[in-house]
Amino acid sequence: MLNACTPDFLSILDAAHPGLLRATAPRDVEEPRGRWQGQAAAVACPRSTAEVAGIVTACGQAGVGIVPLGGGTGLVGGQVMPEGPVPLILSLERMTALRGAYPSENVMVVEAGMILADVQAEADRLDRLFPLSLASQGSARIGGNLATNAGGVNVLRYGNTRDLCLGLEAVLPDGSIFNGLKRLRKDNTGYDLRHLLIGAEGTLGIITAASLRLFPKPAATVVALLAVPSPQAALELLALAEGQLAGLISAFELIHRMGYDFLAETMPEVTVPLSPIPDWSVLIELGLPQGVAPEEAMAGLYAQADEAGLVLDGVIATSEAQAASLWRIRESIPEGNRRIGAVSSHDISLPLSEIPAFIPRAGAALAQLGEWRINCFGHLGDGNLHYNVFPVRGRNRKEHDPQREGVKTCVHDIVHELGGSVSAEHGIGRLKVGDLERYGDPAKLAAMRAIKAALDPKGIMNPGAVLRG
Amino acid sequence: MLNACTPDFLSILDAAHPGLLRATAPRDVEEPRGRWQGQAAAVACPRSTAEVAGIVTACGQAGVGIVPLGGGTGLVGGQVMPEGPVPLILSLERMTALRGAYPSENVMVVEAGMILADVQAEADRLDRLFPLSLASQGSARIGGNLATNAGGVNVLRYGNTRDLCLGLEAVLPDGSIFNGLKRLRKDNTGYDLRHLLIGAEGTLGIITAASLRLFPKPAATVVALLAVPSPQAALELLALAEGQLAGLISAFELIHRMGYDFLAETMPEVTVPLSPIPDWSVLIELGLPQGVAPEEAMAGLYAQADEAGLVLDGVIATSEAQAASLWRIRESIPEGNRRIGAVSSHDISLPLSEIPAFIPRAGAALAQLGEWRINCFGHLGDGNLHYNVFPVRGRNRKEHDPQREGVKTCVHDIVHELGGSVSAEHGIGRLKVGDLERYGDPAKLAAMRAIKAALDPKGIMNPGAVLRG
Repeated sequence: MLNACTPDFLSILDAAHPGLLRATAPRDVEEPRGRWQGQAAAVACPRSTAEVAGIVTACGQAGVGIVPLGGGTGLVGGQVMPEGPVPLILSLERMTALRGAYPSENVMVVEAGMILADVQAEADRLDRLFPLSLASQGSARIGGNLATNAGGVNVLRYGNTRDLCLGLEAVLPDGSIFNGLKRLRKDNTGYDLRHLLIGAEGTLGIITAASLRLFPKPAATVVALLAVPSPQAALELLALAEGQLAGLISAFELIHRMGYDFLAETMPEVTVPLSPIPDWSVLIELGLPQGVAPEEAMAGLYAQADEAGLVLDGVIATSEAQAASLWRIRESIPEGNRRIGAVSSHDISLPLSEIPAFIPRAGAALAQLGEWRINCFGHLGDGNLHYNVFPVRGRNRKEHDPQREGVKTCVHDIVHELGGSVSAEHGIGRLKVGDLERYGDPAKLAAMRAIKAALDPKGIMNPGAVLRG
Repeated sequence: MLNACTPDFLSILDAAHPGLLRATAPRDVEEPRGRWQGQAAAVACPRSTAEVAGIVTACGQAGVGIVPLGGGTGLVGGQVMPEGPVPLILSLERMTALRGAYPSENVMVVEAGMILADVQAEADRLDRLFPLSLASQGSARIGGNLATNAGGVNVLRYGNTRDLCLGLEAVLPDGSIFNGLKRLRKDNTGYDLRHLLIGAEGTLGIITAASLRLFPKPAATVVALLAVPSPQAALELLALAEGQLAGLISAFELIHRMGYDFLAETMPEVTVPLSPIPDWSVLIELGLPQGVAPEEAMAGLYAQADEAGLVLDGVIATSEAQAASLWRIRESIPEGNRRIGAVSSHDISLPLSEIPAFIPRAGAALAQLGEWRINCFGHLGDGNLHYNVFPVRGRNRKEHDPQREGVKTCVHDIVHELGGSVSAEHGIGRLKVGDLERYGDPAKLAAMRAIKAALDPKGIMNPGAVLRG
């Protein structure tokens, strides 16, 4: 049983580690969707790994819970603890240093508090690419991206955050420091603690620094927005593209007409250069080597797709500005969704071949529960859809509060039955603890609980996240 | 404390699971380098995951150790247990089924006993590539490749075995079955048990099946053998190639002249098409998309490298037969080494930029210990070298037996100091348990022991491998 973080404990902590504590600010205990209000006695802001270790050791001795905080942009409540003995927040906001740059190795070592956009910018300064890219990159911190194994738009080509990490430094629940900042592509020396900490959402330790993979920039990129007859056609288009351009497809995003309708309703300044507006479309980005003409490559793909009946219409960007405006459409969809207001949002993944059947099946099942507008879009190349359910025009999400749980269960049950995941890229946090219990493999859950108990016997690390406390 | 696998226990096991036991054959308890002679009371050959679970449960109840056995090709003794209470071997030899093929998803589900070459052939039948490729692929089984996170020649482009696995099925030490055969690219639902089991060398459970990533085949490939002035030049050539052909370099192998000399001495039928024989050379393979002429791409790279002073000479294969004969040179080097007979072989990795300094430094340090012939070659693109130390002509490896440990420590100490790994792709097994204790991060080791104790409290799974029993 944990103890609350009391004024007495804070005094002891402050005496031992002066200058690290600050008062809790509202933003420290909020999360983006406003579902929960967190609590915290104070926020500790260590400047070094040794200071993180000192704080963790003190909390361990006192049995005080710690909620690690990065940019606070997570969507499943992993960063806010609304219940239980009041914890200490440990923010990585002062650990933002670039520890080392090794462009000839395509490696960079950064502290966990570095904002993702800054990681991208540092890589760019080295004439390299750090491909992790997601909507909240201006405030998300790389430690949080690692802790949640964040996804984003470039997973198809470059992998999830875990695939971009060669090594970690972390403070474990007993206060020991794991010095694992290797810059190696191959290292088979025992259990992969790095992959265990990545995706553990701060429940097994606090990531303090990471050795990241960088990539040479493609010689050229080209972006297109293509109307397709159906999700099945979109998948066949992906297969066609992969057959020709294996390893060169940087993004393959599915967009449903509902996304465009929401933009027309809430952000009319974002216009779609296709007429008529298609029911289904895909945004493709290719990153090409020297010797391949980008527009020709995309036009060649279009011609073959046209011949195979896989496209109806399309625009190929012929300038960086046009490419940016196509990406802006895709990137505005989440904001359009927010302005409409979802009853329930689902971050799901499916085996690719199950997607065409899933979409009508989920729609039919939800129709049994009421009338909805459904916006189904996302990272089709990864099998990762954001399947979001909205009220019909003129109705308000609040009116559907009593149905939210039923809607979610309806979608998740089908996803689970088809071999999918109910959290593709956002993690479990506190929002999906029940989903993990419902859908998770029992042997995996038992192993997770055993590992948590072994590494964090007092349960001080992010209490109640991922596993029920 | 474990119990020996007695005739009484075998009788009980046979009664409960008839038809699964066979007598131990010599090949079950040998390993390729002949360092150890294993022991086993019998070999259990289950036909299904349920049968594996039954055997593990029975062994757990009786406190009998289990040594999981795939193809037996591991080079660090993970598959042979020479000491301690005599164990049961659990061989996956009868679990070789293709469980499912999903070419449109680029996924295949196979049982752990399938031989790697058969996995490659099944993928080929689907017109896809399973890129894991290594010398022992004709007898290694995919479950062993996963358990050891095998490397090989295509890691630069496609990653290690762990990167080729989307999901696992495994029997955990308590006999429970982890049903994790997901076919998903994204699945952030709790701790990544898959990555914990991969590379754990059978000490945390027995992998029974895996969901594997397949890849579209490149439209064309081209292979070249290029003489380079130095390892530093080889690295600069790699960077040049990556700048132009990011993501398309399938292999980048460093070869030292000693490898050619050994072939001339032991396998003169393998000839090298470069004259004079260079001190250093690299074998490059490019896998290219449609629209890129393969020989032109390689010739263009050669011309630029020539201008930059990074190459001295070279041959570009202009037929599949020529490409195969260049690969044959590279693939014959380990056999040449075996015929000469190494005093000590080292499977090391280094941060790429440390390699040029490491090679002369290790040579100078070893010269303090005696006279040697050193063959330093391997997967340069991954920072993974096989740094093998041989007697001079006319002397025999046996004469150096008293020096072996000193030679190994000399090399490994330098590797460790430079931030490298003393087991890049072969694992720890039983050979390197002491190395792991010497060079491993103490916090990581403590976490590994805690995880092992939590998941396998009786210590029945591959006793003495990775961690001292």
